[in-house]
Amino acid sequence: MAEITLDRVKELLKREEERYVSEHPRSKSLFEEAKKNFVSGVPMSWMRIWSGGFPLFVEKAEGVYITDVDGHDYLDLCLGDTGSLCGHANPDIVEAICRQMQTRGTTTMLPTEECLWVGRELERRFKLPFWQILMSASDANRFALKAAREYTGRHLTLAVNATYHGSVDETLCFMIGGMVIHYPGMMGPLVKDPSEMTRMVEFNDVKALEEALATRDIACMITEPAMTNVGIIKPDPGYLKAARELTQKYGTLLLIDETHTMCAGPRGFTGGTDLMPDIFVAGKFIAGGYPGAVLGFSREVASWLEKRIPWHNFFGFGGTLSGNPAAIAGMRAALEKVLTEENFRRMEGLAEIMEAGIAAIIENHNLDWYVNRIGCRVEFRFTPSCPKCGGEALFTEADYNAVDIIEEGLTGPVEALVHLYCANRGVLLTPIHEMALVGPTTTEEDVRRYIAILEEMVRELTA
Amino acid sequence: MAEITLDRVKELLKREEERYVSEHPRSKSLFEEAKKNFVSGVPMSWMRIWSGGFPLFVEKAEGVYITDVDGHDYLDLCLGDTGSLCGHANPDIVEAICRQMQTRGTTTMLPTEECLWVGRELERRFKLPFWQILMSASDANRFALKAAREYTGRHLTLAVNATYHGSVDETLCFMIGGMVIHYPGMMGPLVKDPSEMTRMVEFNDVKALEEALATRDIACMITEPAMTNVGIIKPDPGYLKAARELTQKYGTLLLIDETHTMCAGPRGFTGGTDLMPDIFVAGKFIAGGYPGAVLGFSREVASWLEKRIPWHNFFGFGGTLSGNPAAIAGMRAALEKVLTEENFRRMEGLAEIMEAGIAAIIENHNLDWYVNRIGCRVEFRFTPSCPKCGGEALFTEADYNAVDIIEEGLTGPVEALVHLYCANRGVLLTPIHEMALVGPTTTEEDVRRYIAILEEMVRELTA
Repeated sequence: MAEITLDRVKELLKREEERYVSEHPRSKSLFEEAKKNFVSGVPMSWMRIWSGGFPLFVEKAEGVYITDVDGHDYLDLCLGDTGSLCGHANPDIVEAICRQMQTRGTTTMLPTEECLWVGRELERRFKLPFWQILMSASDANRFALKAAREYTGRHLTLAVNATYHGSVDETLCFMIGGMVIHYPGMMGPLVKDPSEMTRMVEFNDVKALEEALATRDIACMITEPAMTNVGIIKPDPGYLKAARELTQKYGTLLLIDETHTMCAGPRGFTGGTDLMPDIFVAGKFIAGGYPGAVLGFSREVASWLEKRIPWHNFFGFGGTLSGNPAAIAGMRAALEKVLTEENFRRMEGLAEIMEAGIAAIIENHNLDWYVNRIGCRVEFRFTPSCPKCGGEALFTEADYNAVDIIEEGLTGPVEALVHLYCANRGVLLTPIHEMALVGPTTTEEDVRRYIAILEEMVRELTA
Repeated sequence: MAEITLDRVKELLKREEERYVSEHPRSKSLFEEAKKNFVSGVPMSWMRIWSGGFPLFVEKAEGVYITDVDGHDYLDLCLGDTGSLCGHANPDIVEAICRQMQTRGTTTMLPTEECLWVGRELERRFKLPFWQILMSASDANRFALKAAREYTGRHLTLAVNATYHGSVDETLCFMIGGMVIHYPGMMGPLVKDPSEMTRMVEFNDVKALEEALATRDIACMITEPAMTNVGIIKPDPGYLKAARELTQKYGTLLLIDETHTMCAGPRGFTGGTDLMPDIFVAGKFIAGGYPGAVLGFSREVASWLEKRIPWHNFFGFGGTLSGNPAAIAGMRAALEKVLTEENFRRMEGLAEIMEAGIAAIIENHNLDWYVNRIGCRVEFRFTPSCPKCGGEALFTEADYNAVDIIEEGLTGPVEALVHLYCANRGVLLTPIHEMALVGPTTTEEDVRRYIAILEEMVRELTA
């Protein structure tokens, strides 16, 4: 393996931090101002974890490019952590949402005809017949777990170690040494002892899954079809099928949360397969960047819901602005015009070039890193090969990054360097992970530029 | 009291239902279609509880007027259950949000300069110095309660019987005979025994409040400054001051949720007073109809949050799209251009005319009803006088409406009649309660028209 010392990482990091600070005086001073009124920084200041303590302030965002208030241009591979996977200011989406707002209102508590198209399209893409529209994937997961408890008459949620399903108490847990604990950093959990609400298994572990389900006290198994929260980890062949069969066998509902895997293609990771979950969730860019999420149910669960609730509302579900017609307009435009087979084919083609480019850097420099991809999303990580599950990912990476994983939330100095090095050279990565997204208007030149910057960084690191 | 028999109510209700159904064939058929893909109706189908089983589908919404797909025009006194209190398609707001979307993106995970103005304005209006931007008031309340638990090292939430704070487990409870129970209809609560998370008191009961707080195990008292969930109930003189002093005395944080009382004026119900809560929440129309909510903290709580979390994120808080710049743009436009002193003065003046008009109907017909008002929001209810608290409201109304309150969620046949009678004559009320909102462009003629329709209905009811 090429020698990368922590001293060298820190040396480069210091240099890049100084450059970042000196080249962004206006973002820095706006951030100082903002701190006077915003706790923990400013709205969505995630970027500041990589960047000498302050985020970039955006002046312009169009397609896959951003200009900051100091006049620097960026290729945006973050795209709002997939929230803007359709591209910033996508004309089709913005036009549809603005037309809705200008002529039929933003929120009325009444439906528009457009929801029919959206309902049919959700069924066509993801196969589940019945849907609700909510405000965020967190909301959708939270409410789905409530429905599952009531439907099954059971109380426990089964989650997969180190997956992320939003700000949902039941899934904000880790498993360490077989014990389920609250996320380190979790604030004021409602249930003190997480084992009262949650069991956990490792991804790809069919044996453990059957053991957990066999107790027949699990209401719902919630999982991503491929893990995305500790880098991309794909399911072993047969794993998802086993999860479907075992949950059915033991009377547990299966919830597939595609929020982070929808970048796999127009039908997400599972929509094109014959894996039929009982509940399906997607959010982020499903309404083209406008806040919105979808919650799908099987016919059985939906019929039960309809019978249980003769009234309009499920207490504990949704809110006044959920299902608002502006979100519906955004969903239609995103699904019809942007999240198409054709666009995804193009995006995936470029993502393959990106993946191959990073793989070549790793190989040429003999690095103990690996690169992985789902659809138009590419990530590289700092271990020799892709772990099989969350537990493995958490502990090997912690060692390599020479940081306390628990304290720093997966962010070590190498990660910080990657992000700052790229930002200083006009490329923005997603604040969580080394995640790069190819959007509908990303070009091959953009991709090559990113690879060249990484190459340059690795050359400096191993010099 | 004028004689209103249940038979007469039902007779008129039947007639109005038939009229509603026959005059809205297109909304009816769209709803039948939508039911094939949406469980429990269509997105935001609340209106169907009043309306022969289907909601109106919106064709056009502008200012305070709506046109449905069958070509009927309505004066909208619902305004998205206050979500659109700024008016539908308000040009200032829509222009600001669309300009943001067209030039700087909908969501980037990065701030825009505009957030500085919003932060300063929130402090100026509501006095609390530090803020976070979230997606919904439900989110804000949910996360505030987490912060309060951790800040105080205590676990319990103190809520006020029959208030509503969104889809928040801790507050989706009722107190009946001194017992705290989950909301009837509550789906799959995470905590089986609500007494493990929540204590409750009746509004305006200072003695009970002190008794509850004196146990010193309450992390946070969450309350609306005036009750709105069972009709408007105002605080007795001194009640809020006592709540502030007692929570301070016993080490409990005070959370004022102004989501439903912001219609009181540009500073809500408490922003203009010297009641300084530790935490403040508002949502609904705070971003002009765009999904968004604000969560304010005192300097003490904010400093603690900053110290506790050196990192960017509080686990269990927010989500990817929270604090997005389109919501910030909506907030700035709403606060600067629409939710002004001048507009509220005008709106309140018209709401006073509405209140007086309904009071005159009640008096002239000798009805055992009352009318109440907060700012631009007017409600009448079916008891002789305003109850002092939630418990009183729940039980007296249940009797009067001759429905099982638990089953029907405050919707009895009289309420259904009011809503249908108005809808059939071109006026939309909020689905929950007899709530009517005066928006920035509502005219005196609009208000007079609504009063005339109510007068006509009461004449028919008492004939």
